[in-house]
Amino acid sequence: MNVLVINCGSSSLKFQLINSDSEEVLAKGLCERIGIDGSLTYQPQGGEKVKTDKAMPTHTEAIQFVIDALTDAKTGVVKSLDEIGAVGHRVVHGGEKFASSVVITDEVMKAIEECNDLAPLHNPANLIGINACQKLMPGTPMVAVFDTAFHQTMPEEAYMYGLPYEYYEKYKVRRYGFHGTSHSFVSKRAAELAGKPYDQLKTIVCHLGNGASICAVKNGKSVDTSMGLTPLEGLVMGTRSGDIDPAILEFIAKKENLDIAGLMNMLNKKSGVYGLSNNLSSDFRDLDAAASKGNKPAAIALKVFAYRVAKYVGSYAAAMNGVDVIAFTAGVGENSGPVRADIMSYLGYLGIQLDGAANDSRGEEVTISTPDSKVQVMVIPTNEELAIARETVALV
Amino acid sequence: MNVLVINCGSSSLKFQLINSDSEEVLAKGLCERIGIDGSLTYQPQGGEKVKTDKAMPTHTEAIQFVIDALTDAKTGVVKSLDEIGAVGHRVVHGGEKFASSVVITDEVMKAIEECNDLAPLHNPANLIGINACQKLMPGTPMVAVFDTAFHQTMPEEAYMYGLPYEYYEKYKVRRYGFHGTSHSFVSKRAAELAGKPYDQLKTIVCHLGNGASICAVKNGKSVDTSMGLTPLEGLVMGTRSGDIDPAILEFIAKKENLDIAGLMNMLNKKSGVYGLSNNLSSDFRDLDAAASKGNKPAAIALKVFAYRVAKYVGSYAAAMNGVDVIAFTAGVGENSGPVRADIMSYLGYLGIQLDGAANDSRGEEVTISTPDSKVQVMVIPTNEELAIARETVALV
Repeated sequence: MNVLVINCGSSSLKFQLINSDSEEVLAKGLCERIGIDGSLTYQPQGGEKVKTDKAMPTHTEAIQFVIDALTDAKTGVVKSLDEIGAVGHRVVHGGEKFASSVVITDEVMKAIEECNDLAPLHNPANLIGINACQKLMPGTPMVAVFDTAFHQTMPEEAYMYGLPYEYYEKYKVRRYGFHGTSHSFVSKRAAELAGKPYDQLKTIVCHLGNGASICAVKNGKSVDTSMGLTPLEGLVMGTRSGDIDPAILEFIAKKENLDIAGLMNMLNKKSGVYGLSNNLSSDFRDLDAAASKGNKPAAIALKVFAYRVAKYVGSYAAAMNGVDVIAFTAGVGENSGPVRADIMSYLGYLGIQLDGAANDSRGEEVTISTPDSKVQVMVIPTNEELAIARETVALV
Repeated sequence: MNVLVINCGSSSLKFQLINSDSEEVLAKGLCERIGIDGSLTYQPQGGEKVKTDKAMPTHTEAIQFVIDALTDAKTGVVKSLDEIGAVGHRVVHGGEKFASSVVITDEVMKAIEECNDLAPLHNPANLIGINACQKLMPGTPMVAVFDTAFHQTMPEEAYMYGLPYEYYEKYKVRRYGFHGTSHSFVSKRAAELAGKPYDQLKTIVCHLGNGASICAVKNGKSVDTSMGLTPLEGLVMGTRSGDIDPAILEFIAKKENLDIAGLMNMLNKKSGVYGLSNNLSSDFRDLDAAASKGNKPAAIALKVFAYRVAKYVGSYAAAMNGVDVIAFTAGVGENSGPVRADIMSYLGYLGIQLDGAANDSRGEEVTISTPDSKVQVMVIPTNEELAIARETVALV
């Protein structure tokens, strides 16, 4: 079956058409500046990437252009819409309502809408994308795959904050976690590569991209993760602060005359390794280059990043009372040997021994620990679109 | 030498007179409601505790009453002020200016004042206490002992937040840590009890009281600690939230119509195990009793508390690349065997084996791990006043 995977933002829309039997990507692309002016980037399998300006007043036009491109006589990859068996939609927040992917019905749409409050920037955009698809592909089954669902197995000691209990009861303030599709995909693959049953393995997945989170997966279930109510908590990220003393907000608000919205903007957009490096870059390649030339803030940013990851790995080893596998994924996790080596330098006490040569590899599935290492350390490229396609096929 | 140890708050003042040779407490007590009406609680060694109402418009009257009581012909423990050789003052925040205790001079007073910004509730009160003592005991040398000083050895990867670098440069926003006097005292004692050199030992001190913090002490130096710019960060405490997703502030502000000051009040006074237990209590004995009768929020509060401590222990094992000794101290740490056992239940992977019978003891120095445990786990009652007296004697 061919599955169209959609990741819809407020003014953008990413898509891939995946053949679920061969798991090949038949075509992929991106609509940008929806509601502003609009452009479509489209690339069929083995073909060239082409970007075209197209007026996209709403997401409906954007998806129509995607369908047109996919079925185009010249550059298309299918003859008609009939060859698209299902659509899988990435949905950011499923709250406590969704512990797994689900076929989209009117009730499901309503339940997703009830989670808007928890992800006011993302869920409404996801719903717009679903509505537009339903309009243009009325007979095609659609599935919602939630970023939060995989983490719904966390026990309460992991998801409850030290806050007034009534905030949980009234507003469902708790840890949800994100990147669930990636953590699930990578932890399953880690078990395959380790040749161990998924339900008998303690794995720590380090999803280190521009957004970054760590997940403790015990016996096939997420038992803790570093992102929280929102994707701001946890690791130091590209531009996000991660964990800070909450009292810093009051201190900075007074010093810089910022209101809460201004503080949130600073924490989400101007912090992380970007802020730490004195606004040099959120890209680790730039930071590496600058640090190697003696730029001190860039060097500090890299040190803080690795140290925080190592501390989370240590805390999740405690959370699971041990760890069998550590898996690195996403942009930095897949490609930066030096960052992985920095992180691993803290973890010798777990019996970890790094294979330096293997760790030099980039972007491929590889074990980077030595054969006698007590914990197996791996690099596993993530593939959220493929994971969404698999979830979708399993349900339709 | 007799050392008067003073811990001065905005409307209260705790004191102990300690003989630094025998390390006996000659007398101790407390002034309360200074500036409101006033009362003095006084207890000489081996004598009864007596509370008397006394008008204390300022801290000067309070300290005069303390001196009067200490030198009183009937209940006093010294004949005159001449028998008090030095005064040791607890000062909360020494910023980056003070990495150790210091004899108080005019320059020191000015430097402490420059840290007021970082501890606006505490440092000004500490200064008032010092000024009042200097007025009444003009010839007596005085020493400032800082809560933050012990942690000034932290490396930058531990003290830098993932925030814009300019906030560190302009405002010195960084992790400082608190309870330094206790962490230093307990980690030193742990090395003695372990029979190992202090400068070759990796110790994690769990100071678990109504305020709670954890410290990683590597080779005699604090290398990380859970409290941050302020004492709000880190563990779930009696009424303080500890770590949360910073974005929760915006969410709650909107829901509850709170400004930043209101949020800080909630996080400091209405959160922690008190908030988690649905406002039942911040006292662990109450929570234990309620949980054992089936009170769910009380049980959750206890579980969350222990889980967070265990995760910090795990993260500091990573920070130091191993751990030799774990030491519990302060009210809960010294007295609650069940809390210690809950925490230890996560840590078997470190080779820790708990000695259940030893762990039943309360408030005494004891090793609670078995002889073949790979990490030695201890209970060590803290004594911040004695530590302040020792620091004071060492400097005068």
